Amino acid sequence: MTEKFSAYFTEKQKQINNRLLWPDNFNAPENVIKAMNYSLAAGGKRIRPVLCLMIEDVLRNDFKSANSSDIVNLGLALEYIHTYSLIHDDLPAMDNDNLRRGVPTCHIKFGEAGAILAGDALLTHAFYLSSDLKHCKSIEIFKKIQQFLSISAGAAGMAGGQMLDLEAENREITFEHLKKIHSLKTGKLLEAAVLLPVIYYERNDVYCALEIFSRNIGLSFQIIDDLLDETATALELGKNPGSDTAKKKSTYVSHLGIEGARQEAQRCRQNALSALTAVNHTDTFYLKELAEFINTRSN
Amino acid sequence: MTEKFSAYFTEKQKQINNRLLWPDNFNAPENVIKAMNYSLAAGGKRIRPVLCLMIEDVLRNDFKSANSSDIVNLGLALEYIHTYSLIHDDLPAMDNDNLRRGVPTCHIKFGEAGAILAGDALLTHAFYLSSDLKHCKSIEIFKKIQQFLSISAGAAGMAGGQMLDLEAENREITFEHLKKIHSLKTGKLLEAAVLLPVIYYERNDVYCALEIFSRNIGLSFQIIDDLLDETATALELGKNPGSDTAKKKSTYVSHLGIEGARQEAQRCRQNALSALTAVNHTDTFYLKELAEFINTRSN
Repeated sequence: MTEKFSAYFTEKQKQINNRLLWPDNFNAPENVIKAMNYSLAAGGKRIRPVLCLMIEDVLRNDFKSANSSDIVNLGLALEYIHTYSLIHDDLPAMDNDNLRRGVPTCHIKFGEAGAILAGDALLTHAFYLSSDLKHCKSIEIFKKIQQFLSISAGAAGMAGGQMLDLEAENREITFEHLKKIHSLKTGKLLEAAVLLPVIYYERNDVYCALEIFSRNIGLSFQIIDDLLDETATALELGKNPGSDTAKKKSTYVSHLGIEGARQEAQRCRQNALSALTAVNHTDTFYLKELAEFINTRSN
Repeated sequence: MTEKFSAYFTEKQKQINNRLLWPDNFNAPENVIKAMNYSLAAGGKRIRPVLCLMIEDVLRNDFKSANSSDIVNLGLALEYIHTYSLIHDDLPAMDNDNLRRGVPTCHIKFGEAGAILAGDALLTHAFYLSSDLKHCKSIEIFKKIQQFLSISAGAAGMAGGQMLDLEAENREITFEHLKKIHSLKTGKLLEAAVLLPVIYYERNDVYCALEIFSRNIGLSFQIIDDLLDETATALELGKNPGSDTAKKKSTYVSHLGIEGARQEAQRCRQNALSALTAVNHTDTFYLKELAEFINTRSN
């Protein structure tokens, strides 16, 4: 990772982290806020919201200015949805994980009921944030954004992917089915991070190229996740490794082997970079660095 | 309940039930759809969406025509949110109920993980439905509708109320606190059912009156719930009665006694009817009948 990219990425994270917690002006019962904020504040790379901000910079061809509050809100909505999904996925009835981002999971800290409700409340507030747009040009765009986000996160997207993922435990699945699971479970929200700003700015000219870019970084993101679950330590990961093997889950590694999975991640990265060549007249340096970062991360 | 009201109410229920299930054109994993549709189809009075349609009729002063697809979509969004909340509330970590609307609860039928995900997916799709508006007049109204729904359902509304409700188990709470819990847990979504059409049609002239109406029918709805939990049979209720007592929950009955609770419900009904007198030049017959129906229902 270059120093230039690192500084840029950190600055984007800051814009998100500054606005991340439950806003004081919403009066709500104390303990649900505590549980929500606990999980929001528990760290994380903020890849989805940062990606959202990065895409705005590319679309505006401006990498110095602060991002627009509308795109920051869309980014926050994605992080709220991502955080709720981690809380629910960690529940005893789901993946039963007690460690996440280096700290006890939400249900360990606030009980199962508290964690279920905190997740529900985060998901619900995401749609407040995604509709907190001040400069949206038309009702059509506004509507498209809400519906794209809902489809990406719901039964036809992330939630549906998690269902398929649970059903795939303890049984053999085809490589095609594995890709399908991940395209929904991890892919759809990363895709939304890239495409929501494109929809917001009505940039149909780059929609297809950035869609291909997002799908490929989504795939490589998941492959690296599978590799890390196999090879990293709990300290590096901030959660317990080896959980896929323990649950007899099919992964890219179980299908392709460690070396094969690494090659597949590289192939996806290459596809992502190729897609960017169609995004003309714009500096895609940071997006290229991001694709690199996703492939070399250690947690 | 008069025959006229009964026929009207049934016709409204039909408009909702005809559109209630997950639409075929959304391709999503089979089992999450099955679990969602199971709970959506498991019956229920559809009070929230029907109320939404009834308010549109009052605002249009037209009680014969089919409702607009926009208001039907808002009603469906409310029913999706209500259904998700029942699924999550019934979970072992929450109220641990195995019977709902006369059939096994979602987690009994589809497992805890399936039920959590079905609830998540219903909640997520609610915001697709609420933004599926074809004739909304401005971005401001569109935005207000999404945000009002999110606040009503989230940490500052229904989800926050459920958190307070769980915290109140096995301990004494004041009557004021009990009212606060119910105003959030049951009240906010009923309020949204009344006020979303008012926001949609920009009818500020009747906003306050209908807000008071909605709060009072919300209160009487909850008081009757508490009374039924004490006095009805499982067959009448479609769920196990006596659960409040078993959990040592404060209720209107534990605070006011059976007779006192009945009087309180009557008082709320009277307040609801008084509020309607401010809604001039419009036939409020059906709303009055609804207030009556809520107070005399046996399940």
